[in-house]
This record gives sequence, C-alpha cells and structure tokens, in this order.
Amino acid sequence: MEGLLMRGNGELRSLVFETGVQLHAAGSCLVKVGRTHVLCAASLEAKVPGWMKGRGTGWLTAEYGMLPAATNTRSDREATKGKQQGRTVEIQRLIGRSLRQAVDLAALGERTLSVDCDVLNADGGTRCAAITGAWVAVALALRSQGLEAALIRQLAAVSVGLVEAGEGRRGLVLDLEYEEDHRAAVDCNLVAARPTMGAGGDLMLVEWQGTGEGRPFSRAEADGLVDLGLAGCATLMEVQRAALA
Amino acid sequence: MEGLLMRGNGELRSLVFETGVQLHAAGSCLVKVGRTHVLCAASLEAKVPGWMKGRGTGWLTAEYGMLPAATNTRSDREATKGKQQGRTVEIQRLIGRSLRQAVDLAALGERTLSVDCDVLNADGGTRCAAITGAWVAVALALRSQGLEAALIRQLAAVSVGLVEAGEGRRGLVLDLEYEEDHRAAVDCNLVAARPTMGAGGDLMLVEWQGTGEGRPFSRAEADGLVDLGLAGCATLMEVQRAALA
Amino acid sequence: MEGLLMRGNGELRSLVFETGVQLHAAGSCLVKVGRTHVLCAASLEAKVPGWMKGRGTGWLTAEYGMLPAATNTRSDREATKGKQQGRTVEIQRLIGRSLRQAVDLAALGERTLSVDCDVLNADGGTRCAAITGAWVAVALALRSQGLEAALIRQLAAVSVGLVEAGEGRRGLVLDLEYEEDHRAAVDCNLVAARPTMGAGGDLMLVEWQGTGEGRPFSRAEADGLVDLGLAGCATLMEVQRAALA
Amino acid sequence: MEGLLMRGNGELRSLVFETGVQLHAAGSCLVKVGRTHVLCAASLEAKVPGWMKGRGTGWLTAEYGMLPAATNTRSDREATKGKQQGRTVEIQRLIGRSLRQAVDLAALGERTLSVDCDVLNADGGTRCAAITGAWVAVALALRSQGLEAALIRQLAAVSVGLVEAGEGRRGLVLDLEYEEDHRAAVDCNLVAARPTMGAGGDLMLVEWQGTGEGRPFSRAEADGLVDLGLAGCATLMEVQRAALA
Amino acid sequence: MEGLLMRGNGELRSLVFETGVQLHAAGSCLVKVGRTHVLCAASLEAKVPGWMKGRGTGWLTAEYGMLPAATNTRSDREATKGKQQGRTVEIQRLIGRSLRQAVDLAALGERTLSVDCDVLNADGGTRCAAITGAWVAVALALRSQGLEAALIRQLAAVSVGLVEAGEGRRGLVLDLEYEEDHRAAVDCNLVAARPTMGAGGDLMLVEWQGTGEGRPFSRAEADGLVDLGLAGCATLMEVQRAALA
Amino acid sequence: MEGLLMRGNGELRSLVFETGVQLHAAGSCLVKVGRTHVLCAASLEAKVPGWMKGRGTGWLTAEYGMLPAATNTRSDREATKGKQQGRTVEIQRLIGRSLRQAVDLAALGERTLSVDCDVLNADGGTRCAAITGAWVAVALALRSQGLEAALIRQLAAVSVGLVEAGEGRRGLVLDLEYEEDHRAAVDCNLVAARPTMGAGGDLMLVEWQGTGEGRPFSRAEADGLVDLGLAGCATLMEVQRAALA
Repeated sequence: MEGLLMRGNGELRSLVFETGVQLHAAGSCLVKVGRTHVLCAASLEAKVPGWMKGRGTGWLTAEYGMLPAATNTRSDREATKGKQQGRTVEIQRLIGRSLRQAVDLAALGERTLSVDCDVLNADGGTRCAAITGAWVAVALALRSQGLEAALIRQLAAVSVGLVEAGEGRRGLVLDLEYEEDHRAAVDCNLVAARPTMGAGGDLMLVEWQGTGEGRPFSRAEADGLVDLGLAGCATLMEVQRAALA
Repeated sequence: MEGLLMRGNGELRSLVFETGVQLHAAGSCLVKVGRTHVLCAASLEAKVPGWMKGRGTGWLTAEYGMLPAATNTRSDREATKGKQQGRTVEIQRLIGRSLRQAVDLAALGERTLSVDCDVLNADGGTRCAAITGAWVAVALALRSQGLEAALIRQLAAVSVGLVEAGEGRRGLVLDLEYEEDHRAAVDCNLVAARPTMGAGGDLMLVEWQGTGEGRPFSRAEADGLVDLGLAGCATLMEVQRAALA
Repeated sequence: MEGLLMRGNGELRSLVFETGVQLHAAGSCLVKVGRTHVLCAASLEAKVPGWMKGRGTGWLTAEYGMLPAATNTRSDREATKGKQQGRTVEIQRLIGRSLRQAVDLAALGERTLSVDCDVLNADGGTRCAAITGAWVAVALALRSQGLEAALIRQLAAVSVGLVEAGEGRRGLVLDLEYEEDHRAAVDCNLVAARPTMGAGGDLMLVEWQGTGEGRPFSRAEADGLVDLGLAGCATLMEVQRAALA
Repeated sequence: MEGLLMRGNGELRSLVFETGVQLHAAGSCLVKVGRTHVLCAASLEAKVPGWMKGRGTGWLTAEYGMLPAATNTRSDREATKGKQQGRTVEIQRLIGRSLRQAVDLAALGERTLSVDCDVLNADGGTRCAAITGAWVAVALALRSQGLEAALIRQLAAVSVGLVEAGEGRRGLVLDLEYEEDHRAAVDCNLVAARPTMGAGGDLMLVEWQGTGEGRPFSRAEADGLVDLGLAGCATLMEVQRAALA
Repeated sequence: MEGLLMRGNGELRSLVFETGVQLHAAGSCLVKVGRTHVLCAASLEAKVPGWMKGRGTGWLTAEYGMLPAATNTRSDREATKGKQQGRTVEIQRLIGRSLRQAVDLAALGERTLSVDCDVLNADGGTRCAAITGAWVAVALALRSQGLEAALIRQLAAVSVGLVEAGEGRRGLVLDLEYEEDHRAAVDCNLVAARPTMGAGGDLMLVEWQGTGEGRPFSRAEADGLVDLGLAGCATLMEVQRAALA
Repeated sequence: MEGLLMRGNGELRSLVFETGVQLHAAGSCLVKVGRTHVLCAASLEAKVPGWMKGRGTGWLTAEYGMLPAATNTRSDREATKGKQQGRTVEIQRLIGRSLRQAVDLAALGERTLSVDCDVLNADGGTRCAAITGAWVAVALALRSQGLEAALIRQLAAVSVGLVEAGEGRRGLVLDLEYEEDHRAAVDCNLVAARPTMGAGGDLMLVEWQGTGEGRPFSRAEADGLVDLGLAGCATLMEVQRAALA
C-alpha cells in the first residue's frame, strides 16, 4: 500500500509536519509518519502543579490519547470508560519526561507547558511520532511567546526493532509499521537530543527503552539497535528544522 | 478575522468536507464550518447492545469529544478526569438520536454503526457541525459496505439565534460563531431531514431545541428561528451532496 | 386505572402539590401529575461555584434522580453504579437552565439555590413535573427568606406529542403518560414563563425541545404542538398559584 | 417542637406506616418515626448474583440512600459524587444482613428481593426506621406474590443510648432523635426478631451494635441498653402488625 | 495444621507482635494471631481534615486493606478495581472509631494519626487483629514523638461466636479461625478498653457487635458471648504490654 | 545508616529472600534489598483473559502496590483514591512483561499466573526488587504444582545510574538507594535473563530502560551502564538460586 518498492532496513517512512492546525493552541503540529498521524498541541497555562508553587520555575506535562477510529478495529473511548488504559499512561509519562529535557523550565517562570498528543491514525510508532511532533509544537509555542531561549535542546524519537519472522523487512529495522512491530522479536524506542544552539556534535540519548517481546536480546544486538536509532533521529531532526524554518 | 465583509444574518460560514481522513474507519470526514473543525468517523461493528440481541436489527450510537487544545483556553481532558462533562453527554445523545432517523436500522442486521465526532477546533456550533459531518461519514461507511439502501434520509443541522447586544450581526442570525453564541439572548439548534430518494418536498424537522438563555422568547420569534434554520439546512444539504458525488 | 372516561387530547392529568414535605429544606413540594410523583426541594446555600466568586451574584443549580423502585421494573441506583446516566444528566441540565430564567440571580447575593428533584413514581413526563414542582419549591424557599423580589417569572412545563399508533388517545396530545410517550412518533417538552408581577400577557417560551423519535415532523405539526403546550402551561400555572396562595 | 411534654426515656416517637406509596414496587411503605421519614420498597427480580446461580435458592439485598435535602444542611448527592459514603455502605450492609434473617431464601427460588430505603427526612435513627419499614415492605411484596410462607420472622429495629449531657432526656433513652444522638456517650442499634407464626416467646437478637462514642461503657450499662431496646422492638412489632392487618 | 491438640473454647490463638517492621512509620507492628497476620502502621501527619481546621485538636483515621494473595483464593486488588469493597469500608470505620477512644485527640494538636492495617495473611479475625495490633503501633508512634500522655486507654479486640455445626470446637468459642467463623451461627466482635494509667478495674466495652448470621440469638447467649470476649481481651492486653515493655 | 564503610560503585546491597511468607499463595517471597522490602506472591488461577480463551495457552499478569507507610512521608492509599497512579501502572506493566519472558505460557494450559508485588518498605529500586523477588515466587509456585518445566528462564533486575552530585558514591553506580536515585543524572533499570537449564553463557537483556533525568547521556555512558547492570544481575541470580535450593 505504501508503494512498490520495499523500504530499506535503515530507511524512515515519509515524514510531514503541518503546523498551525489547532487554531487556539500557542503551537500545534500534525505530524504524519507514513500512515501514523498525530495531532500535537502545546498550550501555555499560567499555573503550576501544587507541589511546585512559589519556586518561580515552570513545568511541562503531556497527555496522550487515541481517537476511537484511529485503529484497525475501533477502540473504546477512554473518556466514556472513565479510565485511561495502562498503555496510555505509560506513553504520556514518556512523552512528558522526554520533552522536559528540551526546555529550560526555570526560563518559563511559573507557567505550565501542556502538551496534547492525539492520534488520528495509528500504524505503529505513535509514541515516537508524538514526541517528534510535540517538539515542533513546543518550539512554535515558545516562539509565539518570545520564549525561544527556553528551548535548549532539539528532540526526536524513533522506533527500532529486530524482526525475524514474516514477509517484508527482516533483521535490524528502523521506524516500524504496525505490522512489523507486531512480529518483532525485540522492540525499542529511542529519544535523542542535541543542543539547540552551537555546533551539533554527536546526538545524545534522552530515553532508551528496549524490550525483548519475543526473546531476550544480546549486548551486541542492543548496540546495533542504538546505532540504527541514532542515525534515524539525525534525519528526523533535519526535517523538524525545515518545518520550523 | 473571517474577512472584511460582515456575514449576512442568513448566511452560512464557509463549509468544507474532507473525506477519508481516518484511514481505518469505514467512513470518515473532517468537516470545517468556518473555524469550527470536527473529525467524524463511522465504524461498523459486528455487535449490538445487550438489550437488542436476537432481534435481527442494528443500532447506531454516537460519541462526542473535544481535544483539550480545541478551545480558547485549554480544557481538561475527560479521559484524565475519568468522567465526561454533562455538556458532552447531552451532545452525544443528540447526535445519536438524530442520526438514527437517517438509517434503517433493520437493514443493518445485528451490527452497530459507531459514530465518533471529535472537535479539533471549536468556534461555536460544534454539535451541529458534528451532525452534518457525521451524516457524510455514515453515508460513506454504508456505501463502502454496499449498504446504501440503509440510508433512508439526508440530515443536516444548524444553529440559529437571536442576538440583541454587542458588535456584529444582530437580530435573527444563522450559524452562530462562538462570540455570537455567547451574547445571544436565544440559542437554538435545529436538525432537518429529507428522504434520500425521490422528490424532495419540504424539509422536515428531526430535532428542534430552543433555549432562552438571556430571556424567554415569543411564539413569533420561535417561528422566525425555525424558518431561518430550515433554509440554512437546505443549503448545507447541497454541499453534503456535492461532497459525496 | 385512571378512571372510566378517556382523557381528552388537550386535557392535563390531575395535578396536586403537597408543600412542606421535606422538613429541613427552605422550600419543598411533592408534585403529583397523575401517577408521576416528584419530590422537589430548594435549599439556599451560602456559597457559589468557584468561577462565580467575587461577583456578588448568586447561582441556581439542579439535580435530578429517580428512586430505583420508581419505574416499572426496578432500575439501578446511580450512587451504587458510581455514575449518573446520560438521561439524568440531560434532564438536570434542562431543569437548572429553565429555573435560572425564573430567578434574578443578582438579587440572591453570593448564594446558591440548590434544587433537588427526586422521582418517587414515574409514569411519563417526569422532567416536566420536576420543573413545574421545583418552581413551587423555589417560590417557597425565596418567600421563607424574605427574597420574594428575586422571583421574577412564573414557570411551568408540559410534554406534548404526536401519537399515531396504539389504543387510547391519538393525534396531538397533551401531557403524555409513559405508555403514550412510548408509542409517540414525536415527543416534545415545553417550558413556558410569564412575569411574576403585573398583567400577564401571552406566555413566552423558555425551552422548546421537539424530537422526532419515530419520524421527522413538519413545520405545521410543530406549530400545533407548541400551541397545545402553551395552553397546558397556562392551566398548570393557575394550579401553582393556588398552591402558593 | 414535638409537643409540650418531654418524651419519657423508654418512650418511642410516634410511628406511622403508609403502605403502597411506590406504585410499581411489589411492596412499599413510607415509615414515619417522629420527624424521621424513610421510603422503603421491596422489588422481586428474577435473577440472583453470579456466585449463587444454579443453587435454586434466592437472595435479598438492600440499598440505602438519603435525599440531599433530607438533612439539616443539604448533603451532596452520592450519584453526582460518583461514590457512596462509608456510612451509607455500612448501613445498607446492616439492613440487608438483618432482613435476610426474616426470609426463607430457599422459598424464593432463584429470585432476588431488592430492598430500597431512601430517607426523605432525617432526624436520627434512620437505619432503624429503614429496617422496621423495610420489613413491612418485604411482607407486602411477598404477600402480593403469594409467597407469605417465605416470611419466617418478624423484624424491628430501634436505637438506644446513654445520654449524660445537654438539655432534655438523660440516662438510658430509647429511640434517639438527631439532637440526642449527637450528645449521647453511648449509641446502640438493636434489631430484634420473633417467629412470624406460632406463640411468640421472648424476642431474640438479630443484630446488636453498641459504640462508646464518648466513653467506654460497662457490662451493666450494656445490659440496661439491651433491655430497653428489646422492649422498644416489642412495641414496634405491634404497630407493624396493625399496618399489615 | 495448628497442632495436634484442639484449642479450648476459651483459648486464644498464639499471639506475636513484631515491632518496627515498617522503617519509615512513626510506629509499626506486625501482629500474628495464629495464621492471621496484619501489618499495622501509625503515621503522624501535620494536618487535619478540613472540617477540623482551627480547633487546635487532632484526629485519628484508619484504613484497612487486604493483599490479594492473603486469602484462600486470590482476591481482586481494590486499587485496580477503583473501589473499596463494602466490607473494607465497614472494617476501617470500626478500626478508626475504636482507636479514637484510646487517644486524647486534643493532646495531639492539629495533627492526624493515620493508621494503616494491611492483612498479609487472613485466617479469620482480621479486623480484631488489626485493632489489637494498631493499638501497639499507635503507642509506639506516640512514644517516638514524646506524646505518651496522649495515650489514655489500652485497647484490644477479639471475636467470639456460637458454633453449632461442623467438626472442631462447638458452643461459645473465642477467637474464631476462618473455618469456624464460616460455620458459626452467631458471630461477634468486641473491643475492650481500660485506662492506660492507674489501677485497672474491670474492662469496659468500646464496641460490641453481634450478628445472628445463621439464626437470632437470645439475651442469655449474648451475655455468654460478652463474658468470653472480655476475658479474651484481658489476656490480649497482657501480651500487648509485654510487647511494649 | 547501612554501616561505616561506603558501598563500592559496583557493589549490591545486602540481599535476603524469605520464602513462604504468604500462607495461601502457591509461591511467595519477601525480598529484602537493603532497606527496600517487597512482598511477592504468585497465584495460579484457573482462568485466562477473555481475548485468550480457547487457545489452550496460559497468561501471566502482575500488579504492584505500595503500602501507604512504606515511604518517607505517608503516601495516599490507591484503593481509597479509586485510582492507581501513573507510576504504579508503568511499573506493573514492566513486571508483567518481564516475567512473561521467564515462563513458557503454553505449558501452563488455560491458567493465569497472577503475580502481586507489594512494597512494605521503599528505599529505591522497588521495581527491580519486585522483579527479582517475583521470579523466586513464580519458581516456587510452579514447583508446588509440578510445573517446573514451564520455567524456561531465570530473571533478575537491578538499577544502575550515573551520579554526578552530592555526598557518597559518584560516577557509574549499581543498585541505587532512594537518596542516590534522587540525585542521579541518569537512571536506568535493567532486566537480565539466562536459560534455566543447561550451560549459562552470557546474560541476555529482557528490558533495558535508561532515562536522562538530569541530562542526556552519551553512547559511551550507555555502554558502561549496561556492563555494570549485567554484572549485578549475575550476582543476584546466584542468591536466587541459593534461595530455591
């Protein structure tokens, strides 16, 4: 469905950022990674959580959701069930934790950057697309408030995996689609960072989560996965930059 | 913000339907009514509520949501609060009740049409835009399953109101923006229908809700509001037809 | 069970108000509309919702409930399920919105009129009986506090419908019992108001909700339903007055 | 407020049972113990809890609620808060446990007697009034189904307490009003039973709960409280019998 | 399983207190009553409930829980279900109410003693073991803060019952194991107190709850149950004292 | 507090397994890692989740909790709040996912291994202690049912971190206490596995999660952290083996 030629193991899916999609948000961005589409918004609110009050510093928090019709078979609406799924909670904690590494919270003052990532279409890699897109939304939000200086690092995220069965790409592969993710033996998510200013230097790691879903993995396999992920993030960062230019 | 010329009292906002936006849904449509944007999806599920089992007939249900960043100041995510707001519940009941008038449920067999309406941007009239867009999504879903015959009526909805204060449009006005809705003395929503097949004839009413938010309204004012709303729905139906052509 | 003679299409059920039934409430009233019995209480509380604080004006809020044994087959207790039904939420929003038209909120000061409507027996028309009875409870509560001047309008509500099938009343009928409501093609609720003081003049509309449950309805049918409902409300208001005399 | 003469220590408040108040329930009874009024209903449902299925025997369950305006200052509606209070849960467990001693569950077949006790006015002793009234509702429900034989015991409940401070009754007192309950050092509830059929004999105890709210109490004080409570229950049972005659 | 000789009717199970088990709590105690093991902790928090603020006096509150694997067949985790069971609520209210009789709340100042009782192994009598163990934890917590003077009474609790069927102990029995509790006709819990200081005198009652689970019980049977329970509490208090020495 | 000599960077805390602590569980183990104590139980239940029915294979699920008094300042009881914290959800998903790598689910038949990990005392590393202890509980549970063959891998988990500030251990450190975890720049958890049977060979990775809490980390730092963690796990596995011998 994605075309006639199979994607290479180290190749990313097509990547598009549509900015300004949510009219009221300080910054917003619809990120399309292949058939995975996530709407990301960053809002600046003049309040901080209770435990932070009076410190003069800000906070960044993130929430993640999936529209019911985003998946292959319709999933239940969490607002109706009255409870977020464990998977949702895990993902939104990852997004918030990662993005806090991109922002100098002290430079925000007592304000909260609220990041919302809502999946319109899911085809694997939604949490990575959310982080990559949310970083663009955050950059736009800070710029709209004249707070560019608070953006201290650029952030991008990508999945990598080890696929041993099924038709299609095999071995160490970058940026897994749902169907690849489903049959991967090892499934990882990697968030990388570099300083916003100055000479780049090597990408650093912000989060690195590897899971042996099908079998444990060796030290050497872990090395290969990290290398592949870092390379992918470098490319993602170039497209982010273009979107903001 | 919408342009230099003020909109006429009986004039609709610009109306666009983008279909096929949600890749997994049987039918989907992003409806844009001015700055109000609602993503509507219709999914066919092979089940019915418990109390309907064994009757051989189908069901249609609707859910409504608003992305946190869709409003002027960010609103809380209902999935996080663990509860849908009263306003949300009221709206999704209206959407479901209305759309059940468009579909011959017996023709569905024991299946449920699940309609999801999620507001990406809110600028007044979200429930009416949701109904108007959801009807297109339902039509696409039924067509994709070869169930066109189950679509027995065309449906569109619009708001009308009586505005007595503030700058801008005054008197009986059609299709209120948020700022107009906010200062309206009387606020109404009207859902109209006509048979899908055959000669049109006059539009009929499916729902008619008028509320005196600022003051009670007279019998004569009610008449004027209904007339204006029915005329607006006739225009909306033409654009729906074009979107499906 | 209601007697040997069938009720006329434009005839109300028997109507009784028993006041002072809840000993602690500022105002209370058990309204009996045929076999529909609703206990209404109005309490004055020295607080307003957070978003209203400091404005010097008051608020009116309403809650609605149904005792589990009020219906033909016992219904679940919402407090046990941990959630109010959508129908409950929709009804209590209607009650509150309507009653706020009866009271000059500024005249309350920073106080809240909390209205509770609990259905002891349900035989159709519970939301209309609740509004009609709650208005009496509110009037009593304001009088007990020397706040008669805050009661600026008299309010009553009634259902009207279009019945086309079954035994019993047919055509446009006033004040539907459960069994009639169940087989009605069109089902409406109408809330009417008139100024508390001075010459009456025509009744005005506060809420007008019409739903084509069985089929859409024409403009002409809507007109007939409104006429019937306004006439019914005029009669209800006479009995309310007698109850308060 | 109850009259000019102070009630004697061993004297009950006035007691009235109004039966048939809930029109749809198999049995119902509004019990008025002084200014404490509880509406009790017993419904027979053709189902049993999951863990009882297939045993051929029935079940009895009870729920308790308090209308918001039943108390001196309005209390929150539990259905709105989404949670029953601890006090409510404790009381409804007591009611159910007690009433199960009155009924031969095997004689019900696989059916559930659902008992609902809703407090319309609270002035102390609501749980005891609920049990005493609910027994009447259960008796009526069983009679209406020709199941009189399943009613094996008569049940009544009363509060007793030891009051040491304040104006009014002092010492061991029967059937406490709210104001007495509030200042009691020891506060007890007693549920008594006797066989429905045959010679009475002494009353037996079904539940006996004594709490030293203000101070611990001696063995001798406990004896006095039980004696007083059993005497009170004997009188309550006479009035119950008259109500059912 | 407990040994070769059957326990006497008036004999307690083996009783052990392991103190200091929770390293962060002001006072903690793992109480082992036969195969019933409850971990009790008392924490002093510098806050009181909203309704107590400004009175200069303290509060004591208790919570009770059961580890999922504490019972014969694993029970659901209440935190996962999102709701405490009715039984849990009832028990924690009993624990809190009882322990408030042991402490001079005014002597705490505006602080709350939070008591947590978590059942690691359940073999009957968990609520009584919780009270007996929690009293030790409270005593340790107060001692650690130099607040010994606030401990005005010693408290212990035990179950007693009337067993008429099955193998094993029969008649009036003290300190029931799960299997005995299960087949008891009458099931009671008794909380006794004596002043911490000075000559003991007779034990007084703080709570006395008797339930005829299988049949009502006579006045004489109640007397026998109280006697047995008070004797049991006297012994429990000796072991508590030793644990604190 | 742990002694006079500072722990070496690559040194584990003292490690004790007390087995059989929960009397009803198929397998249980109280694991003590320094001052972090976690009670782990494994129960075999004769059911599988709905989506697995009929496949003839089993499931393993895990839940995690923390007693309120386990932490430095008492934390709220999740069962009372009605909701598990995000952190709790994230941890129990990690425990379950990891342990499923240790067990041949097909060999269980249609049964569920339910693992409960409850923290009695928290001093850092509770999730790793939980996994290490739960593996022992699972091994005991399978042995007790004659299902040793289903245990295909040995599992242990440990934290590693990069500490750059504060007094005490600095640099890459193994098995962080709470106070070290709090000031770590990089914080990782690593779950390692080896086949239960046969020659060991190198440890493999099951989960590897690294988070730059204070700053991003380099590829080289990641390498050092993995090496340290794998070495720690090898030692943990020796103690596990001894506990089961």
